[in-house]
Amino acid sequence: MARIVYVNGRYAPWGEAQVHAEDRGFQFGDAVYEVCEVRGGRLIDETRHMDRLARSLGELKITDPMSRGAWARVMREVIRRNRVVDGSVYLQVSRGARPRDFLFSNADMTPTVVCIARHVNVTRRDASAKGIAVKSMPDIRWGRCDIKTVMLLPSSLAKEAANAIGAKEALMIDSDGFVTEGASSNAWIIDDKGRLITRPASNDILRGITRTTLIDLLKKEGLELVERKFTLAEAKAAREVFITSATSIVTPVTRIDDTPIGNGAPGLTASRLRELFHTVAERAAA
Amino acid sequence: MARIVYVNGRYAPWGEAQVHAEDRGFQFGDAVYEVCEVRGGRLIDETRHMDRLARSLGELKITDPMSRGAWARVMREVIRRNRVVDGSVYLQVSRGARPRDFLFSNADMTPTVVCIARHVNVTRRDASAKGIAVKSMPDIRWGRCDIKTVMLLPSSLAKEAANAIGAKEALMIDSDGFVTEGASSNAWIIDDKGRLITRPASNDILRGITRTTLIDLLKKEGLELVERKFTLAEAKAAREVFITSATSIVTPVTRIDDTPIGNGAPGLTASRLRELFHTVAERAAA
Repeated sequence: MARIVYVNGRYAPWGEAQVHAEDRGFQFGDAVYEVCEVRGGRLIDETRHMDRLARSLGELKITDPMSRGAWARVMREVIRRNRVVDGSVYLQVSRGARPRDFLFSNADMTPTVVCIARHVNVTRRDASAKGIAVKSMPDIRWGRCDIKTVMLLPSSLAKEAANAIGAKEALMIDSDGFVTEGASSNAWIIDDKGRLITRPASNDILRGITRTTLIDLLKKEGLELVERKFTLAEAKAAREVFITSATSIVTPVTRIDDTPIGNGAPGLTASRLRELFHTVAERAAA
Repeated sequence: MARIVYVNGRYAPWGEAQVHAEDRGFQFGDAVYEVCEVRGGRLIDETRHMDRLARSLGELKITDPMSRGAWARVMREVIRRNRVVDGSVYLQVSRGARPRDFLFSNADMTPTVVCIARHVNVTRRDASAKGIAVKSMPDIRWGRCDIKTVMLLPSSLAKEAANAIGAKEALMIDSDGFVTEGASSNAWIIDDKGRLITRPASNDILRGITRTTLIDLLKKEGLELVERKFTLAEAKAAREVFITSATSIVTPVTRIDDTPIGNGAPGLTASRLRELFHTVAERAAA
């Protein structure tokens, strides 16, 4: 657990880390976030995470509250104060606090900034390496999942439903039967020709940083990438299925609902990509 | 503006009204709310609002943090301390604060409670009576709009877009061309036979308390109600269009996008229903 949390310029003990009760993040889901891996004392893909944060803020016309240099310093200070070597750093920016109003552009808003460093959950990481079961769920999220907002209640409910049957992730299925992504990850399949298939980036999915860096790795390894939609049925029949995210890296999926994937063991390609991932990811001193 | 805000058992000055930075309302949109009108020192339709709050909490399996009696006392104390005679009282309940995790049922959670009383915005109320313009927008909200959650970013963005062209509300249009509801109101049309038409309650819309009480009024007045979907084109061609919400009561719509409704003046039926509304609504001493 984080002991020291950064909130609006102050490094506060966890119990005292507070935001205003009329913060728009709390009243309207009007906030964006990033989760960046910390590994061996290094920040993984910091540049791409900060680029995406800037994009999310821009899409919502929230002013970026800090320079890149200031962000870098705050992240490192939170990591240092919490002595995190392996874990993650979480950034959240909301539009700020004001008396509740759906309209916001008529007011001067000072964004709220929260930064939290966490130690890795070893149990979850070890479970990831061995492959996980996932549960398919209707994708009932809003239409702008490309913006990394805190509008996460449906994802949280889907993960709870998955967890209730022993699955570690939910696989979101759109109204046409295609997989969009996981509740907090991108989804991939490998077909019988060894091609890696993942849904193209659109408003329907988050353009994952791990997804983007994995594409770099695929090119380096000479693996064929096909960006297209795939159905739940295709996924269940795939040679391999895996998910990607900053905290789970590449995680083999060994079962979807009641269907084992392949022989039910973690896929060889997914496992290899998991091992090789950090050879291509950016690693900056934290 | 509220001067005294209730937060978790404490009546705090606005500037000191705070929730935890890891509150699930702030990190996941995992919170529900109600807005109850205060009129002439009375709470309007309190029973129905509290019934709906209980339903929202139940749908999300958030424990109701207070008895009905305690809720009633807190609302009245916040109204009294802020000397609100005409305005509204806002309640928000989130699942509570804990180190960030999509999963929540594995932890003991103490819900966060916020209660805020506000004076009526006289400018907006007067504008409502004279009729408003609305802007049609694609409905990109999530699939459980029947639960009154703080997943309100799309509604806020839609209202901003409407406001930018001088419209006071956004009219949400589903992917089949049917009107779902307003960004923070239910939508109604009156056809050339004088029938009042509104979309049936489902997961797609909020079952508005003002909507429900208005249905009582229609029965009393002998007006014909038809609960069915209607299209944007039907709305533009309707004899009257209006919206309902706890803060706007019954508000005539005089223009949708570039199309005047009827002769462009507030509809007679809508205006009469606005005047009669409080003759049927529950009015409890505040």
